[in-house]
Amino acid sequence: MTATQDLARFAAELKFEAIPADVVAKIEDLLVDWFGSALAGHGSRPVASITKFALSQGPADGPSEVMTTRGSTSPYVAAMCNGAASHVAEQDDVHNGSVFHPATVVFSPAVAVAQAIGASGKQLLAASVAGYEVGIRVGEFLGRSHYRIFHTTGTAGTLASAAAVGNLLGLSPEQMNHALGSAGTTAAGLWEFLRTAADSKQLHTAHASGAGLMAAYLAKDGFTGAADILDGLQGMAKGMSTDSDVSKLNDRLGTRWATVETSFKYHASCRHTHPAADALLKVMKDNALKIDDIVKVTTRVHQGAIDVLGPVVNPSTVHQSKFSMGTVLALVAQYEHAGLAEFDDHFQAAPTVALRDKVEMVLDPEVDGAYPARWIGKVTVQTADGRTLDGRVDEPKGDPGNTLSRDEITQKAIRLATYSQGATEAEATAAVAALWNIASWPRVGKLIGGGA
Amino acid sequence: MTATQDLARFAAELKFEAIPADVVAKIEDLLVDWFGSALAGHGSRPVASITKFALSQGPADGPSEVMTTRGSTSPYVAAMCNGAASHVAEQDDVHNGSVFHPATVVFSPAVAVAQAIGASGKQLLAASVAGYEVGIRVGEFLGRSHYRIFHTTGTAGTLASAAAVGNLLGLSPEQMNHALGSAGTTAAGLWEFLRTAADSKQLHTAHASGAGLMAAYLAKDGFTGAADILDGLQGMAKGMSTDSDVSKLNDRLGTRWATVETSFKYHASCRHTHPAADALLKVMKDNALKIDDIVKVTTRVHQGAIDVLGPVVNPSTVHQSKFSMGTVLALVAQYEHAGLAEFDDHFQAAPTVALRDKVEMVLDPEVDGAYPARWIGKVTVQTADGRTLDGRVDEPKGDPGNTLSRDEITQKAIRLATYSQGATEAEATAAVAALWNIASWPRVGKLIGGGA
Repeated sequence: MTATQDLARFAAELKFEAIPADVVAKIEDLLVDWFGSALAGHGSRPVASITKFALSQGPADGPSEVMTTRGSTSPYVAAMCNGAASHVAEQDDVHNGSVFHPATVVFSPAVAVAQAIGASGKQLLAASVAGYEVGIRVGEFLGRSHYRIFHTTGTAGTLASAAAVGNLLGLSPEQMNHALGSAGTTAAGLWEFLRTAADSKQLHTAHASGAGLMAAYLAKDGFTGAADILDGLQGMAKGMSTDSDVSKLNDRLGTRWATVETSFKYHASCRHTHPAADALLKVMKDNALKIDDIVKVTTRVHQGAIDVLGPVVNPSTVHQSKFSMGTVLALVAQYEHAGLAEFDDHFQAAPTVALRDKVEMVLDPEVDGAYPARWIGKVTVQTADGRTLDGRVDEPKGDPGNTLSRDEITQKAIRLATYSQGATEAEATAAVAALWNIASWPRVGKLIGGGA
Repeated sequence: MTATQDLARFAAELKFEAIPADVVAKIEDLLVDWFGSALAGHGSRPVASITKFALSQGPADGPSEVMTTRGSTSPYVAAMCNGAASHVAEQDDVHNGSVFHPATVVFSPAVAVAQAIGASGKQLLAASVAGYEVGIRVGEFLGRSHYRIFHTTGTAGTLASAAAVGNLLGLSPEQMNHALGSAGTTAAGLWEFLRTAADSKQLHTAHASGAGLMAAYLAKDGFTGAADILDGLQGMAKGMSTDSDVSKLNDRLGTRWATVETSFKYHASCRHTHPAADALLKVMKDNALKIDDIVKVTTRVHQGAIDVLGPVVNPSTVHQSKFSMGTVLALVAQYEHAGLAEFDDHFQAAPTVALRDKVEMVLDPEVDGAYPARWIGKVTVQTADGRTLDGRVDEPKGDPGNTLSRDEITQKAIRLATYSQGATEAEATAAVAALWNIASWPRVGKLIGGGA
């Protein structure tokens, strides 16, 4: 049995009862967290474009909920719409080791299909775990060389979607392997759009959600795919990676749960800013500093942070400011949290700009060596009264060892759901409260105004 | 202006009036030829699977025709269905230099959109030329290293679809470049499925047709894509090729018409068998040989033919026999043409097997050196009466210098359309007769039972 077949077998056979309680709890956390991000796509122009197109090509009604429009349509169309919506606020979850954002490409198709086939909450949760476990391992397998050119959330995400939907559809191990074959041969997503800040990120997650779903439905109907789309001689790794590691594909299946390694995003900024932001917060709390006490901040970072954030010196848009280390640190120094509102209201305020320009990044060998398995935060703060203070966090807020409480997840989800008028406070509060009990739902219905 | 921008500008601005008469005639030939191949997908299991899925996720009615079912639906869904159908009989056209099959990924989306927006026949023809010119150049640009791992008809085909649909939608040059950006970042297709004869080829052409169409519609709505998805630092070439040649992208736009370089497939077999088949026919005609006169045939071929056809020694299925050089030569030796019926009825017949086992392939430096720009056919025949006869064709039947007449194209299209009960003889005859006049259609309607 190849590693690909082993992974397919695991994804096909995974049942709720076999999943440890802490993993179940984590996938519930991740589902609630996704709910907020999906509604946060409301009002986004690229999300609206994809949604408008997909709805115009699909049926006028159907079993599956489109989160940003409150309409319903076929599962394929809904998966595309919700996949487009869930990643745009840049607040959805991330798995550090694979640099992969699972929620948007797992829950978008899985919820749409669960609604369409009348699956139970437990079935949805188990299928979602299958999607996380597959997508994360495929991302790790494809490696850093892949991530340099390809948006892993688009590529590995297509297989994650297929695995989640395939589990819901009850595919046999052989059918699941065909589904992964079809998903892998339609997997796509290139970073080139970043150069001109184009809209492709939302297209990648929409595409992965839809193409993976299609692959699973086709497999259920007897449509065959490559036997080893991942590690074959003309497969994904040969075409799109130079450092793939096949041992990652079926690494400790059923004993290592990659799902629980997934991190929540606490700040509404590029993940590369989070470790330093939390380290600064720690220095300020430990030493009771205020923003005016700070003369200079040196952040000690991994090379990837310098590559991504280094060019952003004088951010002119809210979106760009989320990639400015100085802006993020200035916001947390003032508000203890860099959320959507803090960016919108204060990214160009005088106190923000003043501290922003006192922040520098330097490469730190320890931080760089630990990345991407661990994202260590280190800062050195010089104070107005002449002190030099070092701060360190070994895991940024939201990482597994420093995770969010259910109360924090609830508040974050409601904040995201309401911020762009995706839902009212009352709707979001009720929906999140219901979602925490999804394991008891006999049948997955509408998430907003519906529930079990 | 980058080469990508130049290509986008050309595709956006191309109008029917600017296209030379011989190119117009050729695109009409190619459209009629495609019509037959699209209907030949009727009854194919993988085509039926994709069609069933796509129709189940789309609207129950719409402006665009699904050729194999006679239903109609949204253009996106119809493009996927017809894209799946048009490549399965392996009789659709091919551009030698790019090893790219344009018709399935150009006409499938272009006809669907023309029907949806009420475009004229001339608009459809111009848009189709835009699709051919873009797809062929992208295939040439991506090079042979790309084709070793990736199915160019799937990858370059996504951009070909976007160009054809974008031209119909009247995209500006900037919008067309965004459409190419979105198409390129969702382009996919790996050869790995060949190893186990899986169904992915039909998924690739369905995916390319749909994703390209979506990219163009999104661009029309203001959705942006990468500025240089083809040649950028994290674009298609960087991710999926090691020998890309940017000069191919905008090679003599408007003066070199790649459309007219496209070949028709005359035999219903792998294209790599065609040059030798035609060379054998020539020897037999020139020397009035019958099959029993032949003791041995040595075909002198390019390396690609040995790679693809070499493993097929004792074909056990009709589909596999189309990749058997011996079977193809045995059929043309008996029937002068290796069509769908010849394969179905005679691929395992005693006379076929007897000659099949007398055929060998040897690498020929001249043939290999000319490939893929030219596909030269060379054979040496040993006869029962002791003669050694050499045969040669510089272009196999269907290539531009040895093309099919309109009567031959008509007969081929009707044969394909009727062979799998995709249409009756009367329907196919009427539809093809109407299609030859498409340049005078004020509005593209249904191709079967409809017309102008």
